[in-house]
Amino acid sequence: MSEPIDLRAMGKRAKAARRALATLATTAKNGVLERVADALEDPAQQEAILKANAADIAAAQEAGLSEALIDRLRLTPARLSGMAQGARDVAALRDPIGDTFDERRLPNGLQVGKRRTPIGVIGVIYEARPNVTIDIAALCLKTGNAVILRGGKETLHSNRALVALLGEVYAAAGLPAGTLQWISVPDRELVMQMLRLDEYIDMIIPRGGAGLHRLARQHATIPVITGGIGICHLYVEPSAKLDDAVEIVYNSKVQRPSVCNALDTVLVHRDVAAEFLPRMANRLSQAAVEMRCDSTSLEILREARAAADATWNLVPAQESDFGHEFLALIASIKVVDDLEEALAHIERYSTGHSDGILTEDYSHAMQFVDVVDSAAVYVNASTRFTDGGQFGLGAEVAISTQRLHARGPMGLQELTTYKWVVFGRGHVRE
Amino acid sequence: MSEPIDLRAMGKRAKAARRALATLATTAKNGVLERVADALEDPAQQEAILKANAADIAAAQEAGLSEALIDRLRLTPARLSGMAQGARDVAALRDPIGDTFDERRLPNGLQVGKRRTPIGVIGVIYEARPNVTIDIAALCLKTGNAVILRGGKETLHSNRALVALLGEVYAAAGLPAGTLQWISVPDRELVMQMLRLDEYIDMIIPRGGAGLHRLARQHATIPVITGGIGICHLYVEPSAKLDDAVEIVYNSKVQRPSVCNALDTVLVHRDVAAEFLPRMANRLSQAAVEMRCDSTSLEILREARAAADATWNLVPAQESDFGHEFLALIASIKVVDDLEEALAHIERYSTGHSDGILTEDYSHAMQFVDVVDSAAVYVNASTRFTDGGQFGLGAEVAISTQRLHARGPMGLQELTTYKWVVFGRGHVRE
Repeated sequence: MSEPIDLRAMGKRAKAARRALATLATTAKNGVLERVADALEDPAQQEAILKANAADIAAAQEAGLSEALIDRLRLTPARLSGMAQGARDVAALRDPIGDTFDERRLPNGLQVGKRRTPIGVIGVIYEARPNVTIDIAALCLKTGNAVILRGGKETLHSNRALVALLGEVYAAAGLPAGTLQWISVPDRELVMQMLRLDEYIDMIIPRGGAGLHRLARQHATIPVITGGIGICHLYVEPSAKLDDAVEIVYNSKVQRPSVCNALDTVLVHRDVAAEFLPRMANRLSQAAVEMRCDSTSLEILREARAAADATWNLVPAQESDFGHEFLALIASIKVVDDLEEALAHIERYSTGHSDGILTEDYSHAMQFVDVVDSAAVYVNASTRFTDGGQFGLGAEVAISTQRLHARGPMGLQELTTYKWVVFGRGHVRE
Repeated sequence: MSEPIDLRAMGKRAKAARRALATLATTAKNGVLERVADALEDPAQQEAILKANAADIAAAQEAGLSEALIDRLRLTPARLSGMAQGARDVAALRDPIGDTFDERRLPNGLQVGKRRTPIGVIGVIYEARPNVTIDIAALCLKTGNAVILRGGKETLHSNRALVALLGEVYAAAGLPAGTLQWISVPDRELVMQMLRLDEYIDMIIPRGGAGLHRLARQHATIPVITGGIGICHLYVEPSAKLDDAVEIVYNSKVQRPSVCNALDTVLVHRDVAAEFLPRMANRLSQAAVEMRCDSTSLEILREARAAADATWNLVPAQESDFGHEFLALIASIKVVDDLEEALAHIERYSTGHSDGILTEDYSHAMQFVDVVDSAAVYVNASTRFTDGGQFGLGAEVAISTQRLHARGPMGLQELTTYKWVVFGRGHVRE
């Protein structure tokens, strides 16, 4: 694999595949996905992939990566079966391509409608987890999009094996060579080139940290879908059902702290702070959550801790603890005077991912939903639901926090565009 | 107006206006639009605007602009009334903000839906025509978007007067100062700054030529909606109703040649070329259309011209006449062997705006619609229908030829995004 990477040639191949992919029958696409799944469960293929993965793990250990990161890289037969199941799940989803919507007959008799089509060529830049390779491949194939993948250097060997598997299955099915391509050299300069390949790539999805998103925004001449960075808030009102509120805060923070829809900041109304905060601290401490508290909440919680002889991990909050995505068992806590202060705090610090209110006050719930301008706005539920699978999209390619094209979880439909189809009978414009 | 322009301050003001605009009642928005219309018909306002417009016209004459361009700048009482009617038409359209769609109850009981919201802050860069100022203002207000306008230097005085009118009406209605702002210095450096104001502007719409679009794509760190450049094709098959085909070609080319949905290239199947081309040439010559012909069509048409003793304007086509947007009474003509060659030609040369087939062959019509990947694909109708008004959107802010967010005519709905709204009753994720 030492030949130089020619991104323009890759772009051309991808573009050349568009027509065949756009008109591929759903049954054909599903058949390929089933064969991908079968290959992922084939013992010989598994052996090759796990051997490649072992090389990545060894390199990661040598580089001194944390055990958490190494675990994200690691493939096992069970994880490969999970990936196979993921491909089968995508095969089972309804194919949105070809759906016609907003169809109408105009007064002059023209029949006008919008027909769903693939976007065309999608570029995906992602980091550690090798399962993303199969996820993205499956979602793009199902929606008839050609894809150019650029994975992280940590998963180089694993991705090479997975891409080889996909390539074999695709070739056997007669798919064009440009259907799925992989940039096999994890060179940052190639990322920069990719971001400016607007002649061939229609959309770029950077899946990674804030730095990658900024890079893509700054340098791309192609539309970029950014997202996946969530500074998420829950605001607890005096009228909330406090048992529910405790569990929702706990679930939002603890159920999977390393992901973007996990809770970062709890805002508590002053009138319920003394009652709610100790109960919340008690529950969060069962998962050893570190609480970074503003002065009011710190005072209440320190007093309650002393009274209860508890071992809550309380820390005075710094200004930087608000508007911070922790991705860990840490939460910042602030007492606010009223709904207005909560709304202002969220407007200032939220990344527009997932924010919620816990209340039984109908008007406040409605006002929160009207005013908070995030991809997902919650009343009395955990922020952890912002997820393609949870929302019933079946799968997701990313969670968008930008405002154009798609917002929130992006499933199959969000990987499509439309064209206007107009059926006339000799119509001319007056 | 000689104080320096502070774009960041403008951005902040726009962002600060978002919440008020997003929650403004439809009746309030419509009331403001009616008052804008009334002001545009007020004699004193008209006098001030026409005086400002006269200064632009004088400057344009001094600069030696063409009469056609000067006509685009020119305002008259009738044109101002037309603009007023445009604002009333937007008031009469249904407000999409707040619509909930794709709402469903998940198996766990969560009520999940998408609610339409404003995009936020829209930046529009446009060129000569001053009526665009009112159009964009009306569409953005109706959709609750704040807007920052940057018009061309040719309309500086007219725009100042129009923005002053809008400012008076908006202020009287109590709208925030950031609702509509205008960059009063037509300095290119400010455009470059605007394109990178991603902290405050959510979408940029460049309305102008290819150079402006390229500039925006290359330099913007904000999502850009490009479009409005149409190299449009009609392909005529032997089975077409030739009387209809002649009229559709004529209408597509002649009805308004200076716009993006006007026809540029006619592709004619070899088997019907000898019959169709002379009839087409005869009709197009009634509007003095210059025909730039490939060698086959040139031979047929020269012979027919001699036989008919006609005065058709026939010119041998250069390669550059294909894939060229004429915006004038010029068409390029090419004879093709079959549907496949027509599809390949369109794939190569079309800008993905509006392309059509004229045929009575059902399978070919379906194949054309499946394969041609343009914003609007036509069977047996004029390309001139690609228009927000014609498609029943009521109005349009631009015609997008990009593939993300919106494609084809962009009306009110295309100036919106959505947020997921989730109503729970203590729901946590398993």
